[in-house]
Amino acid sequence: MNKSIQVRNPRTGKLDYEIVPPSNNLLEQKCLHLRQGQIQWQQIGVEGRIEALQQWKQAILSQRTNLTETLINDTGRLSISVLEINSFLSGIDRWCRLAPELLQESEKATTIPFIHLKQTLVPYPLVGVISPWNFPLLLSTIDTIPALIAGCAVIVKPSEITSRFVKPLMTAINAVPDLRDVLTFVEGGGETGATLIEYVDLVCFTGSIATGRKVAEAAAKRFIPAFLELGGKDPAIVLSSANLELATSAILWGSVVNTGQSCLSIERIYVAESIFEEFVDKLVTKAERLKLAYPTIESGEIGPIIAERQAAIIIEHLQDACEKGAIIRCGGQVEKKGGGWWCTPTVLTQVNHSMKVMSLETFAPIMPVMAFSTVKEAIHLANDTIYGLSAAIFAGEESEALEIAKQIDAGAISINDAALTGLIYEGEKNSFKYSGLGGSRMGSAGLMRFLRKKAFLVKTNSVPDPWWFECQ
Amino acid sequence: MNKSIQVRNPRTGKLDYEIVPPSNNLLEQKCLHLRQGQIQWQQIGVEGRIEALQQWKQAILSQRTNLTETLINDTGRLSISVLEINSFLSGIDRWCRLAPELLQESEKATTIPFIHLKQTLVPYPLVGVISPWNFPLLLSTIDTIPALIAGCAVIVKPSEITSRFVKPLMTAINAVPDLRDVLTFVEGGGETGATLIEYVDLVCFTGSIATGRKVAEAAAKRFIPAFLELGGKDPAIVLSSANLELATSAILWGSVVNTGQSCLSIERIYVAESIFEEFVDKLVTKAERLKLAYPTIESGEIGPIIAERQAAIIIEHLQDACEKGAIIRCGGQVEKKGGGWWCTPTVLTQVNHSMKVMSLETFAPIMPVMAFSTVKEAIHLANDTIYGLSAAIFAGEESEALEIAKQIDAGAISINDAALTGLIYEGEKNSFKYSGLGGSRMGSAGLMRFLRKKAFLVKTNSVPDPWWFECQ
Repeated sequence: MNKSIQVRNPRTGKLDYEIVPPSNNLLEQKCLHLRQGQIQWQQIGVEGRIEALQQWKQAILSQRTNLTETLINDTGRLSISVLEINSFLSGIDRWCRLAPELLQESEKATTIPFIHLKQTLVPYPLVGVISPWNFPLLLSTIDTIPALIAGCAVIVKPSEITSRFVKPLMTAINAVPDLRDVLTFVEGGGETGATLIEYVDLVCFTGSIATGRKVAEAAAKRFIPAFLELGGKDPAIVLSSANLELATSAILWGSVVNTGQSCLSIERIYVAESIFEEFVDKLVTKAERLKLAYPTIESGEIGPIIAERQAAIIIEHLQDACEKGAIIRCGGQVEKKGGGWWCTPTVLTQVNHSMKVMSLETFAPIMPVMAFSTVKEAIHLANDTIYGLSAAIFAGEESEALEIAKQIDAGAISINDAALTGLIYEGEKNSFKYSGLGGSRMGSAGLMRFLRKKAFLVKTNSVPDPWWFECQ
Repeated sequence: MNKSIQVRNPRTGKLDYEIVPPSNNLLEQKCLHLRQGQIQWQQIGVEGRIEALQQWKQAILSQRTNLTETLINDTGRLSISVLEINSFLSGIDRWCRLAPELLQESEKATTIPFIHLKQTLVPYPLVGVISPWNFPLLLSTIDTIPALIAGCAVIVKPSEITSRFVKPLMTAINAVPDLRDVLTFVEGGGETGATLIEYVDLVCFTGSIATGRKVAEAAAKRFIPAFLELGGKDPAIVLSSANLELATSAILWGSVVNTGQSCLSIERIYVAESIFEEFVDKLVTKAERLKLAYPTIESGEIGPIIAERQAAIIIEHLQDACEKGAIIRCGGQVEKKGGGWWCTPTVLTQVNHSMKVMSLETFAPIMPVMAFSTVKEAIHLANDTIYGLSAAIFAGEESEALEIAKQIDAGAISINDAALTGLIYEGEKNSFKYSGLGGSRMGSAGLMRFLRKKAFLVKTNSVPDPWWFECQ
């Protein structure tokens, strides 16, 4: 466990950073320390916790330059690193604003005679968060912030692929006395994550289906809740009534943002056959305008492929598609430049569901476009997948789109836009099929899932005689 | 799978009933049929489903004699068989009353500019229920009724130990045209239950920790929610200020009701040392008044041990306690009479936590009583367990009891009574430790956990230009 892990730079390919995972014993000690701290954290109440989180925000602002720089080195990209920090900070503010009302203890009267019912909420003492490399800061804190404000202590194990941001973040945590005993980030790989599950009371995992299944099984064995946010193969459906300028811009954005390295990327595009060629032409024209952020980070919009192993998967999906008859309308290059891996925005036609690029998560700026003749067929194609994360529908009339949205087996459907679920935190949603498990991280559930309900059932003294029925 | 299972009569010990588990193929066909029926069931809306459930209630009333008789043969007891039917019927009425408001589709406006957010609720198509032998009717329907009214189809696999009640229940189901395509009971053992999990979208399990863990792991592998209600070792704490008449009657009832075969039985009693002997004397006096329901079912209050394998566990716990120094103050007989197994209400003193009777679920009318000197010690003892289902506290002042209740790691705490959580359906609660997993079956969560949240995020047409940020 104490063997160090070399961390690769996605732009240069160099192993220029190193992390040392904690021993099992150290990890256990950290968890015990957090558990100890949680008692006080729960006692200071939501107002005290809000104050600590606001102090954390200030501490992060004073670490902003360091944090931005490490995120850029972790991911090789510029504007999304800035965006991650902004989203993280506004996440703190959002939960600080919403929490006081959500956490009010409710006391209810019942209709049962002679009984007072009191309900209370009890935080899970220690929450474990295991997060991925595609949005290192955002996805390591999206569950952490509401868990903290609910009164839990939190231990986070971010991906070993993007570990550099942990240092400035820990500096900011250690600057807040109330926070440092209830929040810590540990560096490590899969083994560290697996060990972590043994010490916590609830686990939040964002990542692949394969690892998500292991996490869920390990949590089940211990009877602790597992909240899983896994992969997606989000479809977009474009009806003949859609505004094609809007549809092509939104779908392009939804497909290539963060180089397609997002669980809610658009990865399959179904277009009404009457507008198919027009749609593809517009999409290709717009896609061709985008440039790689190479040789310099400001050379273009498309950053490098962060995880080296992902490059092989992308190449495999493209080759498989071409062998089965797909046509590359633009892009199609997956290449090594200056030590990093890069993929140009790619539009494919003549695709079908026998191809990996239409059935498995590609995690790349690749847009396979397929024609449909009836709405029924479009819905069938959209639902013909093991995934059920989100989807997008483009139509002239909202009602037309909603009718289809109701029939899509996914938790969040953007209408006349793409991937809105990543931006709109109010939209509560559950994952369908293999895309996840457990309560929504969006909406008020995002906070409430960190609390257990406890009922106090008080028999009042107004009844002198016991009212129990016979024993048999 | 097609091998028949012989069912034992708990009063006579005779194998006088037989069930034939379905083949895997037949089970799969049944599930497909239910899935097909669920589409229409969801479409008829909550009012249509309420109507069908009320028809089911009428059909059950006309099967009442048969149902009572089979439950008596399944469990060997009289009044609880009647009670089970009444609770089941009032459960139908309760959910029919509560559901319309809970199921209203909510539509929320957001503060995000240019976006309409619409939230909707989608039932899991097919719910599997695996239920135990201690309350065969009640625990096979407690999750089934809210699942049905939420719009799910349900397949139930009750315990093979108490299978006789299934026939009259199925007669009542088949009498309701709208219901018979969305609800079925299948007879079978553990293998049938394990296979069932492979075909459903959500599983509710009530039973042991060992089987519950298998259920949770199988569900995790498929990314389906598992709601587990497992064992308990509920403590009662009696403060020196408590009303001892009330405390002894309530604890006696909470310990011996249904012959102790209830997950929320009182199984450990902690009494302030100043009142210890007085408490024990009163408890013994009251316990000695109770009689076995043998030779006839009306001879007394204490029914037979339903599951033969449980008798061996009870004997083991008693022997272990006596070997380690426990004193039997009354009862203590676990014997075979007329082919059935019987256990007299038993009060034990000089017990400690090294004994099985204080640490493992005994599931018998056995009351081990232990003295404590401080409240802190009482809380420590109550929490010194792998279980966290419920608990009871007896005190002169409600505030005194509530202060302790807050420190007990369990989901429901009865104050000045025992096992109220089994009677008061409004009290929402989660299980702590190994006593369960997943949303509460009590309170509104009891219905809402069968629905997934789905978000429709509609971009309004009022913004002509795309507002997406850069792609990198």
